Amino acid sequence: MGTKKSVSVLGLGRMGSALANALVGEGYEVLVWNRSADKATPVGAKRVGTPEEAFAAEVVVACLTNYDVLRPLLGNEIRTLVNLTSGTPQEARETARWAREHGVEYVDGVIMAVPQQIGTPGARVLFDGSENHHVLGAFGEPVYVGAEAGLAATYDLALLGVMWSVFGGYLQATALMEAAGVSPERFTPLVGDWLAEVGAMLPEMGQEVRRNDYETDVSAVDINVAGLRMLTEASREQGLDTALPQALHGLFLRAQQAGHGQHSVASVIEVIRK
Amino acid sequence: MGTKKSVSVLGLGRMGSALANALVGEGYEVLVWNRSADKATPVGAKRVGTPEEAFAAEVVVACLTNYDVLRPLLGNEIRTLVNLTSGTPQEARETARWAREHGVEYVDGVIMAVPQQIGTPGARVLFDGSENHHVLGAFGEPVYVGAEAGLAATYDLALLGVMWSVFGGYLQATALMEAAGVSPERFTPLVGDWLAEVGAMLPEMGQEVRRNDYETDVSAVDINVAGLRMLTEASREQGLDTALPQALHGLFLRAQQAGHGQHSVASVIEVIRK
Ligand SMILES: NC(=O)c1ccc[n+]([C@@H]2O[C@H](COP(=O)([O-])OP(=O)(O)OC[C@H]3O[C@@H](n4cnc5c(N)ncnc54)[C@H](OP(=O)(O)O)[C@@H]3O)[C@@H](O)[C@H]2O)c1
Ligand SMILES: NC(=O)c1ccc[n+]([C@@H]2O[C@H](COP(=O)([O-])OP(=O)(O)OC[C@H]3O[C@@H](n4cnc5c(N)ncnc54)[C@H](OP(=O)(O)O)[C@@H]3O)[C@@H](O)[C@H]2O)c1
Repeated sequence: MGTKKSVSVLGLGRMGSALANALVGEGYEVLVWNRSADKATPVGAKRVGTPEEAFAAEVVVACLTNYDVLRPLLGNEIRTLVNLTSGTPQEARETARWAREHGVEYVDGVIMAVPQQIGTPGARVLFDGSENHHVLGAFGEPVYVGAEAGLAATYDLALLGVMWSVFGGYLQATALMEAAGVSPERFTPLVGDWLAEVGAMLPEMGQEVRRNDYETDVSAVDINVAGLRMLTEASREQGLDTALPQALHGLFLRAQQAGHGQHSVASVIEVIRK
Repeated sequence: MGTKKSVSVLGLGRMGSALANALVGEGYEVLVWNRSADKATPVGAKRVGTPEEAFAAEVVVACLTNYDVLRPLLGNEIRTLVNLTSGTPQEARETARWAREHGVEYVDGVIMAVPQQIGTPGARVLFDGSENHHVLGAFGEPVYVGAEAGLAATYDLALLGVMWSVFGGYLQATALMEAAGVSPERFTPLVGDWLAEVGAMLPEMGQEVRRNDYETDVSAVDINVAGLRMLTEASREQGLDTALPQALHGLFLRAQQAGHGQHSVASVIEVIRK
């Protein structure tokens, strides 16, 4: 039909729908399949009734809840599989092996964005496997992380881990401020600026980690352990849950007990590595 | 002597020294006191042998390890006390009461910066009590948070809590990437960009919290619980400590169990508030 190749999308959830829309927007011929009929067909895409019909496209993009959903849907008629389903590195490796054994070209990608950001420059898609990113450019900025299967999934979990930490830390902090009569509106702008300051400290922390060199004239583990104890106490006094501050306090405390009291915060990685 | 007033600094630790240097730089007449003789006297400051001698200055800045250290040093000869010692809101309130009872003007400040940033625009000093920030402008940008004692200390713990979450999340993520053969140099720049993306999601999260309205077409608690389980498993498979991902998983899981599975991540605050 058009000059652009045909692409199928398996899964019309929040993310799959956004992907299909972006592909239509880029002028691809788009086939879509979804288990339930209740999800709307993106305007400009063609709905098919079975995964097998979708395999006719040159590239099949899969975006399903998880690998348990993905696995039974796959077939070796697929030419190129671009898998954007989230999972563990192990699951990505197994799927890469399945693809190799069945002569399917395989790209494993992870979307570091929410559906609303798909197609905008801020949206990054990290991928491993084939160096050819095929259609990933339609979704955002493709970033190749290496040939090894599981690498993109590891980046995904690592970066999401940072995100969950920020979300948890932010909600804990917001609850503490609420209890002191300060609204999220008032507090959140300060967090935004503060996150930029904190983020600016990470490159040095990364260097300390790489060199295993924890000398510091900035801030030692001791004073952070004391602070984390205060945060835990203040949260408890306000009747708040303390699971997160306690876990952080425990982590820093173990670094202190392992002899890192006068070392920089980077030394906490020594108890994470075990 | 000069046209500027006299200021004392109690404590020449990492932070106290930076404060004294900044005051000298601003042209104040600076008196300094430190328990041990081994700390160097900042150039341009005058060393005194007892806290009492330091009380002669118009403003006394205290920057000591904690309130247990601060309390026995205070005397009612102090005219204005600018206390930059970190502590709990409760400790700040008690010190404000002591100051009131002894006719001492009191400013309670918290420094959202490391010593190396003192005197630069990025350094914020949040303060409560007297609306007059006195000498705080020498250290960075003074931000008045309200009259109520303990408020600045609460902001401090809340913002530091976000920082500790970021540090913990970053070190956990860095350890996971190391185990996959990716160096901190390679990984950290991605975290920097990612933190900016994540930070940009917080204003909306704050609005959801304020309205207790957790409808979402972005990302539901369910999928984040599944992701946190994967992160915990992947960390365990690599032989890493799992305390932090487990605590986050537990927190999100409790939100899911409380009926927030299809709600936005902001709903996790409901289990923090209890
Ligand atoms: N949303 C985000 O912000 C985001 C960001 C980055 C990555 N991701 C990843 O993208 C993937 C999809 O997420 P999403 O937000 O789109 O999830 P979602 O809205 O819950 O959609 C899930 C999709 O999986 C399908 N599905 C579930 N169980 C199935 C089954 N047993 N058989 C066949 N199809 C089944 C659903 O079909 P039905 O309509 O029939 O239920 C739907 O198409 C996940 O791996 C997620 O981690 C999401
Ligand atoms: N460093 C940072 O990045 C940072 C950032 C924001 C806020 N703060 C806060 O600033 C305050 C000071 O931190 P810091 O980094 O400067 O700590 P530090 O380098 O450990 O200095 C501690 C100071 O307290 C004094 N001190 C300790 N025990 C004492 C005692 N029993 N009697 C008298 N003096 C005693 C020390 O005197 P000696 O020399 O005699 O031991 C020294 O002057 C803390 O509350 C900290 O939370 C620090």
